[in-house]
Amino acid sequence: MASLSPPRRWLFGPGPTQIEQRVYDAMAKPVVGYLDPFFFEVNEDVRAGLREVFGTRNAFTLAISGTGSAGMETAVSNFLDPGAKLLVFSAGYFADRIAEMGRRHGAQVVVRRKPWGEIFTEAEAREAVQAERPHVAAFVHAETSTGALQDPLAITRPAHGVGALVIADCVTSLGATPVDVDASGIDIAYSCSQKGLSCPPGLSPFTVSAAALEALNQRKLDNPVWYLDLKLLADYYDGGKYHHTAPISSFYALREGLAAILEEGTQKRFDRHTRAHAAFVKRIEAMGLHMHVAAGQRIPNLNTVRVPEGVDDALVRKALLHEHGIEVGAGFGPLAGKIFRIGLMGPLANEDGLDVFFSAFERSMARAGAAV
Amino acid sequence: MASLSPPRRWLFGPGPTQIEQRVYDAMAKPVVGYLDPFFFEVNEDVRAGLREVFGTRNAFTLAISGTGSAGMETAVSNFLDPGAKLLVFSAGYFADRIAEMGRRHGAQVVVRRKPWGEIFTEAEAREAVQAERPHVAAFVHAETSTGALQDPLAITRPAHGVGALVIADCVTSLGATPVDVDASGIDIAYSCSQKGLSCPPGLSPFTVSAAALEALNQRKLDNPVWYLDLKLLADYYDGGKYHHTAPISSFYALREGLAAILEEGTQKRFDRHTRAHAAFVKRIEAMGLHMHVAAGQRIPNLNTVRVPEGVDDALVRKALLHEHGIEVGAGFGPLAGKIFRIGLMGPLANEDGLDVFFSAFERSMARAGAAV
Repeated sequence: MASLSPPRRWLFGPGPTQIEQRVYDAMAKPVVGYLDPFFFEVNEDVRAGLREVFGTRNAFTLAISGTGSAGMETAVSNFLDPGAKLLVFSAGYFADRIAEMGRRHGAQVVVRRKPWGEIFTEAEAREAVQAERPHVAAFVHAETSTGALQDPLAITRPAHGVGALVIADCVTSLGATPVDVDASGIDIAYSCSQKGLSCPPGLSPFTVSAAALEALNQRKLDNPVWYLDLKLLADYYDGGKYHHTAPISSFYALREGLAAILEEGTQKRFDRHTRAHAAFVKRIEAMGLHMHVAAGQRIPNLNTVRVPEGVDDALVRKALLHEHGIEVGAGFGPLAGKIFRIGLMGPLANEDGLDVFFSAFERSMARAGAAV
Repeated sequence: MASLSPPRRWLFGPGPTQIEQRVYDAMAKPVVGYLDPFFFEVNEDVRAGLREVFGTRNAFTLAISGTGSAGMETAVSNFLDPGAKLLVFSAGYFADRIAEMGRRHGAQVVVRRKPWGEIFTEAEAREAVQAERPHVAAFVHAETSTGALQDPLAITRPAHGVGALVIADCVTSLGATPVDVDASGIDIAYSCSQKGLSCPPGLSPFTVSAAALEALNQRKLDNPVWYLDLKLLADYYDGGKYHHTAPISSFYALREGLAAILEEGTQKRFDRHTRAHAAFVKRIEAMGLHMHVAAGQRIPNLNTVRVPEGVDDALVRKALLHEHGIEVGAGFGPLAGKIFRIGLMGPLANEDGLDVFFSAFERSMARAGAAV
């Protein structure tokens, strides 16, 4: 095989996002065993850092050895017995995926739908939970497929009113946008390493509230998925009892990524993403383009821009990738061909990042025939 | 957080094992998107390399985005409907884990047991499959918990005689010992990246025979585990349809590790491990110590050595780790305190590796009071 020489991309997509050199360096450091005292030190740093970015004091906070989808499956498989009722608030692809996983695990799944790009009001959520009285309610905090940011309290307040636990998909928000697990009343949250945390993909940050932990401990049935069984994972990470071989290098990377975030300060980092987002919207509107999601409901770190009439979005993405080395995301499902999904995360969420993006985007749009 | 500075270990345990610098370097190369054309090139290299080390022409060969245990769960969850009969040949911890996963997935599990460290003869396997007539039979090729190497044909011949598919756990063998999936008649095999392949943990190589693929395609029920659904993974890796975000850096590492293996030549690499094993046994016996597994039934790349009477194995392991930076594995289950598990894999499977190990091992054993 020829030597591995990846093209150097500007990762302006929904993820993976741009990674700082120090994180790459950490990943190249020597591996130790999965029961090595040093690994447990690293893991405790990871867990402490995750508590910070999640905004939680949950003791049960850890990284699952899989990608964000594995985190979703961990949430669904550990907290839903067959026949238990799962109410999913869906206005996008990832909420539907939660419902699909629930169905596969034998839950009684009910889905409340809104158009892709909208969010749920507290009144809508209240009506739904009171009508359905689910064991578990689930929503997507930052819906990667649409760019919409759901207020967690609009779901958690009514859900807790009927005694439901609440699962929040924080795959796209964590590390770039406040999640505030404790203040938001989220019981079970999961995320990924390759978006707001600016690390390579491979791990899924996960946190469990005291109420959810009690439900877990009282669960009679074993999780059908041994690999994602949180009780066994707790025995490993808290008790030093072998479960699986943790992906050591990915833990090194996540530790370093979290260290960088804590050095910057989480609030400063969130503010930086908010500023970059505001500047992005301004420049998009100056081009005569439109954001897909209503103002006030947008994910700051993942911008969805409507493809103007008559423009082939695939041509634009191709030009961006092949002429400028820039990756952006396409729309899919009902939004296929209708939006660009443009991430401004980590090292790219600043004026320099915006300049790199817009200079290429304007040219690629013009070439594709957009009147910009 | 302080800067990350892992101790530099000699990884003589069952895994993770020593990693060459070129693999670390590959992991530190820039990440691209999970739908980037470059990622698919890397993935095709990975798949081709895996076919070589597995000894198979199976088109359906890929890496699962989780550790070896995720590979095991992939095998169990994709090929066993609830109520299907699973016959497990168990003489160690990992075979029992297959049975446990089968139980959790609702299979009707039957286990044939032998003492930890033994293997099954073809006559024993034939009696079992004819008595039980399972849908699926499973065995562990190289049982990491005991050091015993099971001849695959002793299982596959009788199992195929009753129409059963055969799952083989090749977690410890792949890359260091021939697996010969096609010649051995194995239908479903999985492994890990951090043992015989000398890469960091995080991926699980997986291969599916034509017969198993047909069974998969005819399966009516969906895999309860969405994350490990092979049909969805095929849509991603063969069809470019998004499933999850592949852990790109881990794929880079695996590609580089496989490239190193192919450069050396698989047969040469297997022979090197066999030679290192023979020299290891000679030196162990010269110390007056005994191998746990009978000659002719040993895993070449994972040696299990009996702890002599009166010696505290934990003291020896502690001295090895803290005074010499050497990791070896402990026994567990019925072999707790009774064996050391000593890997000689990849860059350490040679005379230099042996010298490093024995100079430290002899001193640590002497300090723990062994008459060596």
